[in-house]
Amino acid sequence: MPKTAAAGARPKPPTKGERTRSEILKAATRLFAAKGYDATGVRQIGEAVGVNPALINLYFGSKGDLFREVASQALAGAELRQGSVDQLGEQWARFTVQGVSARQARLKASNQSLQLLIRSAASPVAAATVRRAIGEQIVDPIASRLSGDRTQERAALIATYLLGFSLMQRVIGVDALAKGDHETLIRHLAEAVQNCVDDR
Amino acid sequence: MPKTAAAGARPKPPTKGERTRSEILKAATRLFAAKGYDATGVRQIGEAVGVNPALINLYFGSKGDLFREVASQALAGAELRQGSVDQLGEQWARFTVQGVSARQARLKASNQSLQLLIRSAASPVAAATVRRAIGEQIVDPIASRLSGDRTQERAALIATYLLGFSLMQRVIGVDALAKGDHETLIRHLAEAVQNCVDDR
Repeated sequence: MPKTAAAGARPKPPTKGERTRSEILKAATRLFAAKGYDATGVRQIGEAVGVNPALINLYFGSKGDLFREVASQALAGAELRQGSVDQLGEQWARFTVQGVSARQARLKASNQSLQLLIRSAASPVAAATVRRAIGEQIVDPIASRLSGDRTQERAALIATYLLGFSLMQRVIGVDALAKGDHETLIRHLAEAVQNCVDDR
Repeated sequence: MPKTAAAGARPKPPTKGERTRSEILKAATRLFAAKGYDATGVRQIGEAVGVNPALINLYFGSKGDLFREVASQALAGAELRQGSVDQLGEQWARFTVQGVSARQARLKASNQSLQLLIRSAASPVAAATVRRAIGEQIVDPIASRLSGDRTQERAALIATYLLGFSLMQRVIGVDALAKGDHETLIRHLAEAVQNCVDDR
């Protein structure tokens, strides 16, 4: 088999440019989550990755544009687009409550997203970006699964229940949510979500 | 009527010490909410009120003790202790959703409490204090209204729905929660809360 055909059959390895871009995004996510939007500079992100800050601007535009990309990736909820409508309450509640016992790498990424969300509230610029990302990445995908009236309000409430739970469980660390009986939590959370899905 | 008796009939005006104490608490709440726990010093709080920092330590003990007092006052939910059990869902949901149209002074105080909660997540010391204050001032009073099994889990879920809603509506500013149809939001939120109250 010729070497080129074999290479074509496998997913193409990322180019150097793609790797750098992804490293910049990772470092930016980590720094924005740890220090907030205002206290994080493009220069620092460049230093963390070992690239010239000018390259970051070339790839992403301004710091605001970079943060938009980070927030959008951090909040992307692919799992919101799956599952049958009469099971969404149970499915999303279980996913949210048991997130705490999820695979380590994934959990770390998810905790970073929550920190990003929390920290960004300090900066009006970043808060506006996060508000838009929550709308586009979480509320809109949920709303697209609903039928009937007031789908935006019902979807925003579901987002509130799921994000609120994650914040209280993992960022604040409320005891009964972190260490309490998971099946009790899932049952009630699922009911609350399904109630908004079905518009009962 | 002798002057002393008349003075006794009215609420006693606060002493200079009480006024100073209350001014320190107000300034501390404002600064902790605006800048977070780590970035706020006792010296700054003293400067804001115009008193010697040593006096603050005399009144409250350490910065950690002062923050504990601030967090405890900020989260005190007197309204959680009132109302009949079969109406708690409706009552708490209405209070939470319509908080946005509450009296200006009160709303400002309440937004400061939310900021305090959000900002404190950045500091492990402050986060532990806020976690304890949420437990004592919100989860425990709710749990005391519930009967049946797993009252801590159910109370923590109710706290999640109410605090989560306030955060998403007022700090993040999710459109459908801030400007959407209030009666739809209240109806679903009330159902979710009452479902935990009744343990259905």
